[in-house]
Amino acid sequence: MLQIEAVADKACLQAVSWLPEGAVRLLDQRRLPELATQDCHDEVEVLAAMRCGVVAGAAALGVAAAFGVALAARQLVTPVRDWSQELEPVIAAFAALGPMAANLQWALGIMRQTLAGIAPDADVPGRLLQAAEAIAGADAEANQSMARFGLQLLRRHHSAEQKLMLLGYSGELSGGGGGTAMGVVQAAHRAGVLKEVLVSEASPPRSGARLAAWELQRTGVPCSVIADTAAASSMKYDPVSWVIVGAERIAANGDVITTQGTYALAILAMHHGLRFMVVASTATLDMSLSDGDALEPEVLQGAAGSSQPLDVTPVELIDAIVTEKGVIERPDEGKIAKLMSIRRLH
Amino acid sequence: MLQIEAVADKACLQAVSWLPEGAVRLLDQRRLPELATQDCHDEVEVLAAMRCGVVAGAAALGVAAAFGVALAARQLVTPVRDWSQELEPVIAAFAALGPMAANLQWALGIMRQTLAGIAPDADVPGRLLQAAEAIAGADAEANQSMARFGLQLLRRHHSAEQKLMLLGYSGELSGGGGGTAMGVVQAAHRAGVLKEVLVSEASPPRSGARLAAWELQRTGVPCSVIADTAAASSMKYDPVSWVIVGAERIAANGDVITTQGTYALAILAMHHGLRFMVVASTATLDMSLSDGDALEPEVLQGAAGSSQPLDVTPVELIDAIVTEKGVIERPDEGKIAKLMSIRRLH
Repeated sequence: MLQIEAVADKACLQAVSWLPEGAVRLLDQRRLPELATQDCHDEVEVLAAMRCGVVAGAAALGVAAAFGVALAARQLVTPVRDWSQELEPVIAAFAALGPMAANLQWALGIMRQTLAGIAPDADVPGRLLQAAEAIAGADAEANQSMARFGLQLLRRHHSAEQKLMLLGYSGELSGGGGGTAMGVVQAAHRAGVLKEVLVSEASPPRSGARLAAWELQRTGVPCSVIADTAAASSMKYDPVSWVIVGAERIAANGDVITTQGTYALAILAMHHGLRFMVVASTATLDMSLSDGDALEPEVLQGAAGSSQPLDVTPVELIDAIVTEKGVIERPDEGKIAKLMSIRRLH
Repeated sequence: MLQIEAVADKACLQAVSWLPEGAVRLLDQRRLPELATQDCHDEVEVLAAMRCGVVAGAAALGVAAAFGVALAARQLVTPVRDWSQELEPVIAAFAALGPMAANLQWALGIMRQTLAGIAPDADVPGRLLQAAEAIAGADAEANQSMARFGLQLLRRHHSAEQKLMLLGYSGELSGGGGGTAMGVVQAAHRAGVLKEVLVSEASPPRSGARLAAWELQRTGVPCSVIADTAAASSMKYDPVSWVIVGAERIAANGDVITTQGTYALAILAMHHGLRFMVVASTATLDMSLSDGDALEPEVLQGAAGSSQPLDVTPVELIDAIVTEKGVIERPDEGKIAKLMSIRRLH
């Protein structure tokens, strides 16, 4: 649980945390590097904060929403006849914040399942809080596993110190753990195999690159922010070994739906013979979506509730998808189905 | 010569014009769509305005600098012993505004040649003014020829109405005439073969796209500004037939030095099977530069005096270079040398 002192210390940042008195503390990511927090005492406050962009990052949205549902349960006046029925509008409101954000939908799915499985006479608010805490914990663990697998992948392909490129933001504050793409970068830094990180600005909004650079600087990783229009020249004159991105949703065939600009970056990486890595937990994998082309382009353009436009990077442009269950190199439908059949470890 | 009423009328915009009383009028392009002008009464005022970005566009810089030199000549106290020697520091100061801007260097080269060729007892300020007016006129004529040739090229490849993409700004205000890439787009509009224009934002600065959209809207051309990160998806889902750009400088082999972001756009166009057109007068062709790789990357990054970073688009990615002397399809060193051997018509 996050303590005020810990935030002030800058040593232990957490995007979302539960306060013992029964509130959700959100770090206002819009105001970084200033460490301002918002304490939300009911689900309406959590929803309002999320709509304003206080919380950024696919997994953090899921964790915040789960705690928001737990908070809503505590507000209901007992006896409650049908917890599921009472809480469904709240869950739906959180779901509408990011229809494309698979991680958010996954977290809300777990909250729904939990609700459905609780005996009416049990401590429902308590059980929902446990479920939300489990989601936050699972996310943190997944981040750690992905960082480890991503580092193994980097080492498999290169022995020298590496230069990496990130697009947008997928860091520590994007979830309960060390981040997805950012987690791999930080693991590479700790392992001493990282030379430098270039963070490509995605526009709009540009805040992602600023956040990523801030987080890299905090941990002493040499980094530069480059305009996205400079990415191609940078790949030509002083190439990185890998471009590493996170994902909002991954289709069953491996097409990746994520920050707008990723598709272009993947084409540019292929053109220059560089590798392209997607780091995302299996909660991001949507086996019901056959491929990215099944989505209407309109859904991707500032999709309802989504704070930024997305695009589809076809699987052919992706060298590896790193999940908490393992790495898929040259991903395809078969390899993804096989990975998904492995029982989730956490 | 530009009249105040003409500016107010919005019908006849001109980036740079000479006032009969002996001053250079600059349209402040930073303040568009507000039509504010600055009258400069000596070369110091012209230089200061150009340093602040009042004038944008490769050819407009050349025209403004030529008038600035003519203005400087009028300030010299007669008798002047050596006009060339007295004016060289002024010419050098203008040249330093854009070392990569071939059109600017070309215009200043003509001013130097004119100076060298004038008899000491002639009306030197008058002859320099004539030379500057000739440069403005040549640029306007070149723009008209390029628009005509560009339209022919569009018609040669497509019979249906076309959707085109522009990057940055290369319009009416970028020179004495109708612009380079913008001139082709406007010609296509007048000829009824244009369906829609997408203007891709280059960053930083983004003002180019804003200017281009403003100019397109003035003439009733359907257009949308898209974030540069959206260009790849747009090419995939609703492809344009051509991407059209201007140039700061073209190497002898056809490599194009221009607004940063162009290289990426050319790669994306090739990946999606779209055509890529560069519209630039032969004043932009630098036969002393063998190829773009001969330039140090540092020269391109906010090169001294240049208001925006540039990049190199290799000739292999370019389908056609449109000049005032004609069109080169699938350009190479031999075709460019042959074109340059044709006597300049204007």
